[in-house]
Amino acid sequence: MKTTRKQDLVAAAVVGALAFATTIAQAALSAEALAKADDPLSSWNDGKARQSIIEFVARVTKEGSPSFVPVAERVAVFDNDGTLWAEQPMYFQAFFVFDRIKALAPQHPEWKDEEPFASVLRGDVKSALSRGEPALVEMVMATHAGTTTEEFDQIVRNWVASAKHPKTGRLYTEMVYQPMLELLAYLRANGFKTFIVSGGGIEFMRVWTEKVYGIPPEQVVGSSIKTKLELRDGKPVLVRLADLNFVDDKEGKPVGIQQHIGRRPIAAFGNSDGDLQMLQWTAAGPGPRFCLYVRHTDDEREWAYDRQSSIGRLDKGLDEAQGKGWTVVDMKKDWKRIYPFDARQ
Amino acid sequence: MKTTRKQDLVAAAVVGALAFATTIAQAALSAEALAKADDPLSSWNDGKARQSIIEFVARVTKEGSPSFVPVAERVAVFDNDGTLWAEQPMYFQAFFVFDRIKALAPQHPEWKDEEPFASVLRGDVKSALSRGEPALVEMVMATHAGTTTEEFDQIVRNWVASAKHPKTGRLYTEMVYQPMLELLAYLRANGFKTFIVSGGGIEFMRVWTEKVYGIPPEQVVGSSIKTKLELRDGKPVLVRLADLNFVDDKEGKPVGIQQHIGRRPIAAFGNSDGDLQMLQWTAAGPGPRFCLYVRHTDDEREWAYDRQSSIGRLDKGLDEAQGKGWTVVDMKKDWKRIYPFDARQ
Repeated sequence: MKTTRKQDLVAAAVVGALAFATTIAQAALSAEALAKADDPLSSWNDGKARQSIIEFVARVTKEGSPSFVPVAERVAVFDNDGTLWAEQPMYFQAFFVFDRIKALAPQHPEWKDEEPFASVLRGDVKSALSRGEPALVEMVMATHAGTTTEEFDQIVRNWVASAKHPKTGRLYTEMVYQPMLELLAYLRANGFKTFIVSGGGIEFMRVWTEKVYGIPPEQVVGSSIKTKLELRDGKPVLVRLADLNFVDDKEGKPVGIQQHIGRRPIAAFGNSDGDLQMLQWTAAGPGPRFCLYVRHTDDEREWAYDRQSSIGRLDKGLDEAQGKGWTVVDMKKDWKRIYPFDARQ
Repeated sequence: MKTTRKQDLVAAAVVGALAFATTIAQAALSAEALAKADDPLSSWNDGKARQSIIEFVARVTKEGSPSFVPVAERVAVFDNDGTLWAEQPMYFQAFFVFDRIKALAPQHPEWKDEEPFASVLRGDVKSALSRGEPALVEMVMATHAGTTTEEFDQIVRNWVASAKHPKTGRLYTEMVYQPMLELLAYLRANGFKTFIVSGGGIEFMRVWTEKVYGIPPEQVVGSSIKTKLELRDGKPVLVRLADLNFVDDKEGKPVGIQQHIGRRPIAAFGNSDGDLQMLQWTAAGPGPRFCLYVRHTDDEREWAYDRQSSIGRLDKGLDEAQGKGWTVVDMKKDWKRIYPFDARQ
């Protein structure tokens, strides 16, 4: 009995101390560590991919070993579209663009006769997109600029809370990959700082990444347009300009990483050729390195596409991954669940 | 005795749990909190400035109070030159520029007859600087571009480890303000994330900010030149280009804050009119806000300058601070010590 009492006290103290440490360290970390302690990667089937992750984390966190990496240098970067959430039948941000064009149409009567807007308003997204990158940039500018940063935040917030995916009928933020959520939490529980490095719009993502992925705005790197400080009614606002600032894709990803993070990641996660330079940049540093590609192989629970896809093409990256022995996740075989709303296996 | 035994066990458990939480949460925080618990701001004289800091921190950290701010939103931004380290008789990075021009001169025989380089090589810095901003930009480009990011890191690392200030004979990184180091630690111990937002070069600062201020590279915002990914001997490198990317000064500071951090700070610290927009941007958000200007008033231990100075001019900012009741630090009266190497009072 005495022992039990003591143990209770100790347990209470541990819980109390942990709660205190958690508060002051802004660490969801310790809570995550405890919650996941039995099986931090429970939606991953036991296999080479899962093993490679666990082995890498063990190597870099083992104090005193030559492969040990100090906490400050445990930087992990994640692509978003197709790596953390789905990207079919098109990038989710494109749905946002089209919804915004429809919402803004009353203020732009000229769009009825002006491409690519006319196609979007007729519901013919395919024609709108077939006009190539300049048309896409035009649509992005028309829907992402002209507001203040705070107004844009609210517009995205409203959209994310209500817009539904055409196939699943789910909120887009529900279509995130459960195994990747576990991986993010597992890395953070092991002292990693997790960043998003995506071709998507930086301010489009920041609105919801903290809630959905546990990744705060300051750890999101993405494409951006320029902003300008203005005074409105004596209050400073940042106005979003129709002027491209940075494209965070392909060779832009290492540039974005250096600009935002200022040190080379030791682990990188992607799913397409657009992530290849990020993985190469990560791999080229000294010491232990980890590169992983998510390969979309499950046409029942998700989508199956790689070398021939116009969205999320994985071709050169797949060759390089196979040649260099990087981890390639076979979604169909390696993942017990795809989305958090899938039934537990 | 039984009680003592229990307390020991409890204490041991607490220490163990804290050590564990600290390790996984990469938190220097709790360590800092413990170390500074008696007097976290021991180099500050008791006065209005010190009191205003302590009161603000108490307000935003008191759980359950209407002014409570969640840890994730406790963002504090600091100017660097004149706020965290000295900036006289000229910005320290300018000394780096001139030293680099001298070091690179053998590879540039044409500089002997080419301004502003010729003036620098003759030791006539005043003439070189009198040629205005275009000349300064030319010198920055000639000394900051043309290397890879890793090479530049090493060049700055070597310079910072050896170059001495012309007046004090100290390393530049020793000429940091002891009271501000304490303030940084105090804020972090209270759950704040501390960022630098400086007009200085982002990659010039990142080399030493972690060691000197405890601010990691990913929390440094600064001016930058563009970089480009290249393959050299099959290895990816980022090459620094003679092409301005971003000027993080005046109206650029809120832009840089939004770009890098993605949320508005609740506390901002500066020393010049170049910081005014950052302080205004910080002050304009909802809830509790804290703005502080360091005023250089000590011509014995440091330098005394404000409204008339060409470097670190504090004129409009001082009026606004006085009008709005922001905290103004009088270095002479408020600080017991200026530099860490000053004798303790």
